[in-house]
Amino acid sequence: MTFQRSGNRAADQLRPVKITRGFTAHAEGSVLIEFGGTRVLCTASVEDKVPPHKRGSGEGWVTAEYGMLPRATHTRGDREAAKGKQSGRTQEIQRLIGRSMRAVFDLKKLGERTIVLDCDVLQADGGTRTAAITGAYVAARDAVNKLLATGKLAATPITGPVAAISVGIVNGTPLLDLEYIEDVACDTDMNVVMTGAGHFVEVQGTAEGAAFTRAEMDELLRLAEKGIAELVAMQEQALSA
Amino acid sequence: MTFQRSGNRAADQLRPVKITRGFTAHAEGSVLIEFGGTRVLCTASVEDKVPPHKRGSGEGWVTAEYGMLPRATHTRGDREAAKGKQSGRTQEIQRLIGRSMRAVFDLKKLGERTIVLDCDVLQADGGTRTAAITGAYVAARDAVNKLLATGKLAATPITGPVAAISVGIVNGTPLLDLEYIEDVACDTDMNVVMTGAGHFVEVQGTAEGAAFTRAEMDELLRLAEKGIAELVAMQEQALSA
Amino acid sequence: MTFQRSGNRAADQLRPVKITRGFTAHAEGSVLIEFGGTRVLCTASVEDKVPPHKRGSGEGWVTAEYGMLPRATHTRGDREAAKGKQSGRTQEIQRLIGRSMRAVFDLKKLGERTIVLDCDVLQADGGTRTAAITGAYVAARDAVNKLLATGKLAATPITGPVAAISVGIVNGTPLLDLEYIEDVACDTDMNVVMTGAGHFVEVQGTAEGAAFTRAEMDELLRLAEKGIAELVAMQEQALSA
Amino acid sequence: MTFQRSGNRAADQLRPVKITRGFTAHAEGSVLIEFGGTRVLCTASVEDKVPPHKRGSGEGWVTAEYGMLPRATHTRGDREAAKGKQSGRTQEIQRLIGRSMRAVFDLKKLGERTIVLDCDVLQADGGTRTAAITGAYVAARDAVNKLLATGKLAATPITGPVAAISVGIVNGTPLLDLEYIEDVACDTDMNVVMTGAGHFVEVQGTAEGAAFTRAEMDELLRLAEKGIAELVAMQEQALSA
Amino acid sequence: MTFQRSGNRAADQLRPVKITRGFTAHAEGSVLIEFGGTRVLCTASVEDKVPPHKRGSGEGWVTAEYGMLPRATHTRGDREAAKGKQSGRTQEIQRLIGRSMRAVFDLKKLGERTIVLDCDVLQADGGTRTAAITGAYVAARDAVNKLLATGKLAATPITGPVAAISVGIVNGTPLLDLEYIEDVACDTDMNVVMTGAGHFVEVQGTAEGAAFTRAEMDELLRLAEKGIAELVAMQEQALSA
Amino acid sequence: MTFQRSGNRAADQLRPVKITRGFTAHAEGSVLIEFGGTRVLCTASVEDKVPPHKRGSGEGWVTAEYGMLPRATHTRGDREAAKGKQSGRTQEIQRLIGRSMRAVFDLKKLGERTIVLDCDVLQADGGTRTAAITGAYVAARDAVNKLLATGKLAATPITGPVAAISVGIVNGTPLLDLEYIEDVACDTDMNVVMTGAGHFVEVQGTAEGAAFTRAEMDELLRLAEKGIAELVAMQEQALSA
Repeated sequence: MTFQRSGNRAADQLRPVKITRGFTAHAEGSVLIEFGGTRVLCTASVEDKVPPHKRGSGEGWVTAEYGMLPRATHTRGDREAAKGKQSGRTQEIQRLIGRSMRAVFDLKKLGERTIVLDCDVLQADGGTRTAAITGAYVAARDAVNKLLATGKLAATPITGPVAAISVGIVNGTPLLDLEYIEDVACDTDMNVVMTGAGHFVEVQGTAEGAAFTRAEMDELLRLAEKGIAELVAMQEQALSA
Repeated sequence: MTFQRSGNRAADQLRPVKITRGFTAHAEGSVLIEFGGTRVLCTASVEDKVPPHKRGSGEGWVTAEYGMLPRATHTRGDREAAKGKQSGRTQEIQRLIGRSMRAVFDLKKLGERTIVLDCDVLQADGGTRTAAITGAYVAARDAVNKLLATGKLAATPITGPVAAISVGIVNGTPLLDLEYIEDVACDTDMNVVMTGAGHFVEVQGTAEGAAFTRAEMDELLRLAEKGIAELVAMQEQALSA
Repeated sequence: MTFQRSGNRAADQLRPVKITRGFTAHAEGSVLIEFGGTRVLCTASVEDKVPPHKRGSGEGWVTAEYGMLPRATHTRGDREAAKGKQSGRTQEIQRLIGRSMRAVFDLKKLGERTIVLDCDVLQADGGTRTAAITGAYVAARDAVNKLLATGKLAATPITGPVAAISVGIVNGTPLLDLEYIEDVACDTDMNVVMTGAGHFVEVQGTAEGAAFTRAEMDELLRLAEKGIAELVAMQEQALSA
Repeated sequence: MTFQRSGNRAADQLRPVKITRGFTAHAEGSVLIEFGGTRVLCTASVEDKVPPHKRGSGEGWVTAEYGMLPRATHTRGDREAAKGKQSGRTQEIQRLIGRSMRAVFDLKKLGERTIVLDCDVLQADGGTRTAAITGAYVAARDAVNKLLATGKLAATPITGPVAAISVGIVNGTPLLDLEYIEDVACDTDMNVVMTGAGHFVEVQGTAEGAAFTRAEMDELLRLAEKGIAELVAMQEQALSA
Repeated sequence: MTFQRSGNRAADQLRPVKITRGFTAHAEGSVLIEFGGTRVLCTASVEDKVPPHKRGSGEGWVTAEYGMLPRATHTRGDREAAKGKQSGRTQEIQRLIGRSMRAVFDLKKLGERTIVLDCDVLQADGGTRTAAITGAYVAARDAVNKLLATGKLAATPITGPVAAISVGIVNGTPLLDLEYIEDVACDTDMNVVMTGAGHFVEVQGTAEGAAFTRAEMDELLRLAEKGIAELVAMQEQALSA
Repeated sequence: MTFQRSGNRAADQLRPVKITRGFTAHAEGSVLIEFGGTRVLCTASVEDKVPPHKRGSGEGWVTAEYGMLPRATHTRGDREAAKGKQSGRTQEIQRLIGRSMRAVFDLKKLGERTIVLDCDVLQADGGTRTAAITGAYVAARDAVNKLLATGKLAATPITGPVAAISVGIVNGTPLLDLEYIEDVACDTDMNVVMTGAGHFVEVQGTAEGAAFTRAEMDELLRLAEKGIAELVAMQEQALSA
């Protein structure tokens, strides 16, 4: 019972990934990341202030916000600014991005400043949150490099790479990097965030249909490990370009 | 490097669990569940209507809301009703409870009605969301049993038990069922939701400190499997009382 | 034209009242108060800050918040936190509780700290606001006693007891302590708050059906005086236990 | 210990009352009512629809909204529309006005239409809610008279007059119709709403300072009865002009 | 193709304008301005504080808020305070009033204080925003005169008059000062704000129907210049009364 | 007193304009428009429903929403979705875009469907609203062409082109198409919307500093006419590509 992916993609194959640095002009880091048809603009903004719980601590803060343009999707969604509130989904995703980025930041070394990562989906085709995390890391690196270049930081507060990918089970087949039509059809959907060292930062697996077994979980984690290792290599390549 | 738990609790030992059915009078199901010092009131309400996306479908809906009394915690938290919005944390938790309950419901068999599970934390000492899921299942069973007893349902729409537990790594030691002081100190915090058959419904693991290895993850899942099997037995015992 | 009360209760008889101190663990005062089927959890929280209008005044503040669990009632009500606002009824009630408590506090003697009384209805059967006031007083006493015991206060800022009861006219019969089915049926509904000395703090009478005469009002106040005197005695008994 | 009122007003004397009908052009009823320096514009709007709980019932509805212009008061208050919410005080007052008006309406005779009474304070000097009720009655009468004149109603749904006044105890002296400086200084503040027949619709008494005795309450009610009888006469005089 | 105006008003004729100073008692400036059936209460409040972006600058601030009573119009509109938000229209208008007033204020000479202009429409018959600007200027002058009289200001911060009028094209005829039925019927609607020197502060023209030509625009501006010159004279006359 | 523009741009010269159709995949029209450093993504979405005021009328509706990504600007702005409300500026702009588009739509010919134009600023350097209008027209044309191609419309409801440009006076020099540093420095800022026939749809001029004379206004309108004629030609060129 195997599932035929579009473009003859193998079960353990990522979609084409493209990372464009300097996509917009003003932000300290600005990255357009594409996972196939998913396109997310990730900007990193450095602000010389911290939220109340960090004031006077000598430590900095890293946080994220997530949004989706109303017509990033097949049918138009409501604009959250017009509705007057962010959905539960949006809040979950931006909290996930924020935690993932903080996992590779030494907040003491950042000093009392904040890096805000804005991840805005221009076009959605599945995996927007994992593309956002993967792109936000590159934007954050660019922002930190500016702080280093201008002498505002003497040493990087970033402890290593972080990237993310989705995995799932569609018609019984474990797949890497779900696109939209796979996401809709899957029984299990899992988002995995890992460091460059191959350790887990976040694992969020949900059985949309049938509950999944321990063996299935093991296979999904293996796929994620493979995909994230590839993404980390692409991040480094983009940063050295 | 082991961690000494309060009350000489073993690393793979649940806190005392107490399930009180019929805790309040009006709800179709009303359960007070206690995991040690954590006390959550779970009520199941049956309503003869469904949300718009289910109208005319012949299918029902199961959803959940979560709240915490302002002084359930060590220091008083803001009342969400007074602030005018639910926090991102609250929304994440109630979405998790709702998905977990739907995982064991056949919505077609429920008919066009809704079961709302309200999980309100009277006292918090870690693990409120896992207690909520475990208690909500018992409340839902009571509500369904009333529908069966009154002939409104001919067969149960519930496909089997569901329960949840937290696991984590504190000072390098994997622990089952974290209480508050352990939760604060942990490097990794994972909430696991499983069916009575031992399959996964949700796995949400977060590295609060250092990222965790695949071996640590395996040990955490093993602890969760053990704990959830015990919880499922306690649910059944409470329901047969 | 007399009204037959449930359980053969006399017209001037309170429902069974039960006051449980220390119902939850964290709050400085935590009282579950029951007026028959009405059960309200009242916690008193001491905070070392005051609202802006009291800052630098040397005076403290006493305030209250009120909530009702969604399924405290016969049919489920909307969760105010999910709706994003407190109803007019909720605000009226919490303002009433706050004023009633401040009536027996010498805010100068409290010092620059705040006591927040959270009154959350676990189960509703009429008279929730009067139960809340009566229970909140006991919780406040416990909180003040902790401040005295730890030397943070040298003398009590509480000037005496306060308690509350509802009275009303059902089918022409004046009744003490209305339960839900009486409340629904009544022509006149009055909530009375009095001090231990038998003086009035609040009188809020509303003609739901026919307007009421001065003679009816006099009889209602007489019933309230009787009931509140009994409640004050029960408060003291609970506090001395 | 007597209190000297401004303008040598006697303790049981109303301020000059002025009722101007037809103050604005569009509303079915439009009344400017003045109690001394308090000026409230009360409009009655007839709408051919009812709220959901009355749809299909054959009954109508009567409701009220209350507002205060930001600079109606000595110092400017926030505009509620700009803050995005009505205060608890505003909601309490508009609920009180609505209940008071419904007390003299036979909703069956009104038919499935709504009368909305908008009471907006142009200038405040104490007693705005009682002036609002007294003026809203006149506006409602004008609106009903238009419905009768155009044949939309065959018989009046209004069962009789309703009016309101404040009473209070200042420096130990019971006073009728408190103006602002008296309201600020009073120990007890009571708002009383009565029908033309001299029966009570609402009694809301609050001890701002010392609790009040039964004897004081009796005297306050006597003052209110006197004042409301005078107001009812003035309403009729204005309506017959 | 000419349009017959009500009351035989000429195309370039203002409606009767009436300016009543001191309409309410508490505000530093309080003006009721009437453009025919349009009646707007404009109050000027002086506050000894400035918004954050002016703190410590030595400069003051001038701002405006706009509201419309629910039944100022032919059919009742929702109360914005009850809806919990100001409409886009309201925000546009109050921003326009604020900019117009700041155009004739030297904020440095005002010192660190704020003048808030509240413009509340009691009755609407077209042109409420232009009446508001014209009346707000008079209220602001009264408020500044009080600051000068009490020595809080040594010299006026007002650089000259400002007034506003609407113009439009109805059935091909350019008209000055549109009333409601003209506003509804017009193809082009333009609001013009000018100084006493005849220079433009704001020009906001909108083609409701057909787009308008340059020649039509020229004629509309000519009408506006005429009307505003007359309004400025009336402002001065009212201020010297 | 002339102003030296960046890149030796002449006073009456547009910045380089680039119009990219099909920028994103899902929308019926998707245009990235660039006015120099200003980049706005304009999508047109066709929905088979109309707002309540058009239901059953046989007519369609055209509306617009506007947003700015938080880091489109030099310093990061708050995300409106996170703040829970759109600013007054945002609402003004999206109302302007909507009116401008409706000026060239025959809503009867559109049938009962809605075209929503979402204009989201990816990078801001002055003139975002005029770029949005100019790009939205192209997106709307693409959407209408799809309706024509699929036979859902038999004839175009678009009556002709519409485009917009800003003009202003900087240091006494009238300039066409202000970029950000010019916008900040200008005394007068005017946005002009015109049809392909050279008629005015909207004129919104504001004196930020000194009020402007009639002669200055005439010169600004002349510049706008020139710029818009050029923009209309570029729109047609892009649409025929």
